[in-house]
Amino acid sequence: MTGTQAGSGSGFAAPRGMRDFYPEDMLPRERIFGAWRAAARLYGFVPYDACVIETLDLLKRKAGEEIVEQIYAFTDKSGRSLALRPEMTPTLARMIAARQSSLALPLKWFAIAQCFRYERMSKGRRREHYQWNLDVVGEPSVGAELEVVAAAAHALRALGFADADFKVHFSSRALLADVMTRLDVPPERHAAAFLALDKRDKIGEDATRAMLGEAGLGAAASAALLGLFGGAALDDVAGFLRGDSDALAGLREFAGLGAAYGLGDALRFDLSVVRGLAYYTGIVFEAYDAARRFRAIFGGGRYDNLLGELGGQPATGVGLGFGDVVVAEIMAERPAGASAPAPAGTAIGYMEPDQRKAAMRLAARIRQSGEPADLALRPEKARAFFSRANRGCFARAAYVGPDDVAAGAVRVKDLSKGTESSERIEAG
Amino acid sequence: MTGTQAGSGSGFAAPRGMRDFYPEDMLPRERIFGAWRAAARLYGFVPYDACVIETLDLLKRKAGEEIVEQIYAFTDKSGRSLALRPEMTPTLARMIAARQSSLALPLKWFAIAQCFRYERMSKGRRREHYQWNLDVVGEPSVGAELEVVAAAAHALRALGFADADFKVHFSSRALLADVMTRLDVPPERHAAAFLALDKRDKIGEDATRAMLGEAGLGAAASAALLGLFGGAALDDVAGFLRGDSDALAGLREFAGLGAAYGLGDALRFDLSVVRGLAYYTGIVFEAYDAARRFRAIFGGGRYDNLLGELGGQPATGVGLGFGDVVVAEIMAERPAGASAPAPAGTAIGYMEPDQRKAAMRLAARIRQSGEPADLALRPEKARAFFSRANRGCFARAAYVGPDDVAAGAVRVKDLSKGTESSERIEAG
Repeated sequence: MTGTQAGSGSGFAAPRGMRDFYPEDMLPRERIFGAWRAAARLYGFVPYDACVIETLDLLKRKAGEEIVEQIYAFTDKSGRSLALRPEMTPTLARMIAARQSSLALPLKWFAIAQCFRYERMSKGRRREHYQWNLDVVGEPSVGAELEVVAAAAHALRALGFADADFKVHFSSRALLADVMTRLDVPPERHAAAFLALDKRDKIGEDATRAMLGEAGLGAAASAALLGLFGGAALDDVAGFLRGDSDALAGLREFAGLGAAYGLGDALRFDLSVVRGLAYYTGIVFEAYDAARRFRAIFGGGRYDNLLGELGGQPATGVGLGFGDVVVAEIMAERPAGASAPAPAGTAIGYMEPDQRKAAMRLAARIRQSGEPADLALRPEKARAFFSRANRGCFARAAYVGPDDVAAGAVRVKDLSKGTESSERIEAG
Repeated sequence: MTGTQAGSGSGFAAPRGMRDFYPEDMLPRERIFGAWRAAARLYGFVPYDACVIETLDLLKRKAGEEIVEQIYAFTDKSGRSLALRPEMTPTLARMIAARQSSLALPLKWFAIAQCFRYERMSKGRRREHYQWNLDVVGEPSVGAELEVVAAAAHALRALGFADADFKVHFSSRALLADVMTRLDVPPERHAAAFLALDKRDKIGEDATRAMLGEAGLGAAASAALLGLFGGAALDDVAGFLRGDSDALAGLREFAGLGAAYGLGDALRFDLSVVRGLAYYTGIVFEAYDAARRFRAIFGGGRYDNLLGELGGQPATGVGLGFGDVVVAEIMAERPAGASAPAPAGTAIGYMEPDQRKAAMRLAARIRQSGEPADLALRPEKARAFFSRANRGCFARAAYVGPDDVAAGAVRVKDLSKGTESSERIEAG
């Protein structure tokens, strides 16, 4: 886990469910954010951003029921209904819709967005997290899905995950609709059935069957459907459907090309992947640790109607969200996850006020060359300085005394090798 | 200006006063954030962060009156009084107070924090901005002030500012208190007088004199005080006080050491710098463009009582805030401010579905080597591909046709030099 849960210590505390990031908490966070940014650049995604506040209207449109319940909504001083965004996709769609005539599609955008939810708090649950968003808008082929999944897998590998450490479970809302149709469920009841299926892990089999019943599925239909959820292969579903559908062909193409993209063993067809958001229309996916001990590492899918429904021209889209919490929990279990940063930069100290200016000029010169320098804020004894400098944060140390200023040079110690060099200094 | 003001386009818009950052808006923003982060590292500051939401109680304590009026406050679903932070310093103080027994002082921390305000909107005004925060906690000497001002000046130079382009106006709340005492204003009325003086530019001379009158200054005292605001040197104030005070000695030391730190010509004593925040106790400063056509680029000062008043052990502190809006406005006026990024990475296209896997493998190999690659999401004609690739974003281009796959190699064009090299590819 990155970040420090609020509420410890005396005096004021952070609001409930919000994380503080102390410098030591920033190390894993910056490692994760750095891997996200690097993978996005390597895959040709360009950055965008928007404020954490959105209008409640935008966020309610097309979100799933559970998402709407958990929106962190509030009213501003002018009575406007606003919210801290639960996800970035509606914001992306709004931004693209506003400029659709001038943007060249397909486009590949990414953001690292803080997202919020408001639900009853259990111990250790958070109300905010950061989510890496990758979106491809305007590309109807599975090239879009492959690009976001491959970029996310690249980031996982950069964070130390081996290929065997994670699986990307994938399915398709369109395929699930084909299955529903085969079970004689009318299209207007598909959404209710999807909601029931998505909640299955939380509410259990019995409640799921009850919800499926409300959505119009008889006991036999529910049993047939849930039977396919227990590890059916693409060919099994083809058998159930008595032939390949367009959705099934798309999934076969996705899996086949994924192997060429280096994703072969990571991809696993799994009809039970549904996703909670109402706006998905095609392929959906969720990545888990191989042992499936944690929640999903990343997830996403195709949303081909969202842009049109939020006021833009119709355009296809594929999005992926990758949160900072689960991946950090998995990384924290490994020895490499706790590795400290390498010592860097030069610690500079001085004995008396008279050597301060010489030390300042040395610090300024080192920084001008692009190397970090930590200048002592006040005079100190050599023993105190070297005790500080030797704590493992610094690569070098230079201590300026009166003799050094007189000589016009100071010794710079390499703290790992124990060697010394000499740097010119100027008197005050 | 970085970011796009909300409200343009059809359909949904961003909430009033909030900025969207399209990819072209991210270029100046990333340049500014990059200069901030690099300068912080070079000067030995370590990162911290916290959620944008704070408890209203924390933010109201010790802020200035105007700040409290403009706090973006709201009530959450559980009835808690929260706010989107207007500044980062109370959060910093809260975090340090919670761990004061285990933190080694002095500490040097930095953050890039989104901050909010809520006021009546005039055209072009924003309700959010990003602010670089540099703080030194636990160091009573002017070494702390020098460190934050020198780091901020370093960032300005990295952003293309010459030494002659900006001035750091500095004064001291303690010196202003000395002047007040000399004018027989009792200590309990100093805060009210500071507030009047800080608002001078907004409310004008007459209203300032009226407010000073309410704070207990007679007409002659007000005239004497405002006379010193018009460019008095340190020696002039010393003359008025009939000798140097501790505050005056501190300012002389700050100015003298600043010269050794490469800040010499940039520092300008200016008694009229007061700052709006109530918690400052010592040296205060504000940086402006040399012609003073814009609002302050950065500002800050010493807050020696804040930590104790927010529940911690007493500890001295110095902070600096540097917003993203004013510096971007100044940079946008210069030709260099609009410079596009250098072309980078390899555009990869393919003629037919049969070459897709070969193109994918090439893209994966280039990315694995640490170079960006933009893989076409679908087959396209050579003409369309090179028209896209030649738009100035890419350094190289590779287009895979059936003959290339048969030959096992593809030509990679260097788009600036016009040269070609060859890359191995594998058939599907």
